[in-house]
Amino acid sequence: MITQKLVSSTVLESFANQIFLKMGVPPLDAALAASVLIKADLRGIDSHGLARLSGYVRLWEKKRINALPNIKIVYETPSTASLDGDLGLGLVVGPKAMEIAIEKAKNCGSGWVAVKNSNHFGIAAFHAMMALPYDMMGIAMTNASPLVAPALSIERMLGTNPMCFVFPAGKESPVVVDMATSAAANGKLELAQYQNKSIPTQWVQDKEGNPSQDPFELKKGGSLLTLGGDRDHGSHKGYALSAVVDIFSGVLSGANFGPWVPPFVAFLEPDPNPVGQGLGHFFGAIRVDGFRPAEEYKKSMDTWIQRFKKAKPSPGNEKVIIPGEPETEMEKQRSTYGIPLMDSVYQDLMELSRTLEIPTHF
Amino acid sequence: MITQKLVSSTVLESFANQIFLKMGVPPLDAALAASVLIKADLRGIDSHGLARLSGYVRLWEKKRINALPNIKIVYETPSTASLDGDLGLGLVVGPKAMEIAIEKAKNCGSGWVAVKNSNHFGIAAFHAMMALPYDMMGIAMTNASPLVAPALSIERMLGTNPMCFVFPAGKESPVVVDMATSAAANGKLELAQYQNKSIPTQWVQDKEGNPSQDPFELKKGGSLLTLGGDRDHGSHKGYALSAVVDIFSGVLSGANFGPWVPPFVAFLEPDPNPVGQGLGHFFGAIRVDGFRPAEEYKKSMDTWIQRFKKAKPSPGNEKVIIPGEPETEMEKQRSTYGIPLMDSVYQDLMELSRTLEIPTHF
Repeated sequence: MITQKLVSSTVLESFANQIFLKMGVPPLDAALAASVLIKADLRGIDSHGLARLSGYVRLWEKKRINALPNIKIVYETPSTASLDGDLGLGLVVGPKAMEIAIEKAKNCGSGWVAVKNSNHFGIAAFHAMMALPYDMMGIAMTNASPLVAPALSIERMLGTNPMCFVFPAGKESPVVVDMATSAAANGKLELAQYQNKSIPTQWVQDKEGNPSQDPFELKKGGSLLTLGGDRDHGSHKGYALSAVVDIFSGVLSGANFGPWVPPFVAFLEPDPNPVGQGLGHFFGAIRVDGFRPAEEYKKSMDTWIQRFKKAKPSPGNEKVIIPGEPETEMEKQRSTYGIPLMDSVYQDLMELSRTLEIPTHF
Repeated sequence: MITQKLVSSTVLESFANQIFLKMGVPPLDAALAASVLIKADLRGIDSHGLARLSGYVRLWEKKRINALPNIKIVYETPSTASLDGDLGLGLVVGPKAMEIAIEKAKNCGSGWVAVKNSNHFGIAAFHAMMALPYDMMGIAMTNASPLVAPALSIERMLGTNPMCFVFPAGKESPVVVDMATSAAANGKLELAQYQNKSIPTQWVQDKEGNPSQDPFELKKGGSLLTLGGDRDHGSHKGYALSAVVDIFSGVLSGANFGPWVPPFVAFLEPDPNPVGQGLGHFFGAIRVDGFRPAEEYKKSMDTWIQRFKKAKPSPGNEKVIIPGEPETEMEKQRSTYGIPLMDSVYQDLMELSRTLEIPTHF
């Protein structure tokens, strides 16, 4: 059984904020980074929230995160830009890049920003959802530490490379697609590790390419499989989607890509011969009224959502789920009742509290 | 065994061209439509080439395709536009929309065009690849006749909804991702039908939601499954991707979406209460030098391709394949040696030749 402690999101956000301040991150950036991090916990993406806080601290200790980055535009056109994140926190670089995309969309219908020299940016949905108040669709993707083998391979060449698409709606909640392009996100493996459970086939393979249901396989040199799992079931499609994310985020921006993407864990050193700078992201914002009046679009979007909610479920399933619906529900619940911290995460935060001398109030 | 006849692509393209002329399509449009169609056969996507020619004719006979459309921009901003295809051939409307996207990208870095009131546009890759000569990335997607059930459902709510991303390279061939968001494209089912073979699990389900390996299951009320196949293996991700295509193509443009998308086959009538006009597409063009100098980008892209080609293959596999590589190879071969026509397709073309009085030279 996993021991869990329930803590208010406000208390946790304030703790994260103070940790970032201690790292020398300026006040507004620290507050922003904390809010990106806590958003993951609120939405139930526990692997990308406070569970990662100590990871950022360790990268900062190794000087692989710059607390005071000079984030700047390198190239731009009216609807595009590339940004140098100057090794800043991805949690800060991400929203700043998305803000530029939104500004460009205001002026010319859409805005697209590729970012190099950044690092882990938290959940993609935070950034993409920034577009919603402006009646814009939002897009966010990032490459990540190589853990995934392309179809037909046993070599770790790609990250779990998430892609996120956010669509505003009218009366309904927005549609939020935020998914790893691997068969399963690494967070799902971690959960199985804590629970000491075997995992479904086609999530991972061992280092020789044999099927495995061992959640610890990655620690033994194995690799995650792409969405689709095997050739018959479309592993080449998951691989292709992951490649799309890697090319937009890494190749277009001038960041590292493929196996050169720097690892998130501080105990693994980045490649001594990088092909670019840091890791990369890609963001987009699209004004819906660049295509049709926003009210018309919203009415259609509501119809879409309502119709899919009514689709006939298969036996044993209650209903069809709209992408983002479970996370929206989770956010409501956790905002009210607090965020459950797994024992390991709790211990991790206590350790941070001791070493950085930041009091916890939980 | 499947009987196949090898015919020169030039001869087949000319035949298709004359069929379109007979439908009353103006000369330049007829030539364009024929070249889009033949591109599918050349690249080995046989289900989307001449095999569909009679389908377009039957839709035209039912007045569901307009040979002389007035294709016009409905809304636009500097980087976006929506287009009314006036029920024209998707094979003509598609390239015209992509041309607008490219023009907008020239002027402001990127261009995005949503299309309503169109129909089947052939292979997505034709349109997206139009961006390549301009050192632009190309994007194309379309919604399609509902054959696919969302995750956890048995109702046909989505098409095989392909997404295509094309990335220019330097010395290497471009990367071309063109994939149905279902576990398998309908063309793969058709091939199994001709070969009278059973299909892998997780491609289709029967109308009660039971697993099936029958390639004729769709004709018995079953449905295609989304990429991922089942919940454990990410069927919700395939569903989400298909939804992304449907929303960009249908909801944003003002076309039909979800179960309302008009069927390609003429013997099925469109929904009498549509939620939009025709079916929809979405196109994008992105100038790579909107982000970094094109030569720098191309060098990185070549490095990406060369490194992935060298990724260690899993046992029993020769090498890792770059997305689009098999199609590029196929196009070289078939341009030289001709296109193999399955007997059923050959008979279909002979029938067209008789009824429309167009001589075949094959």
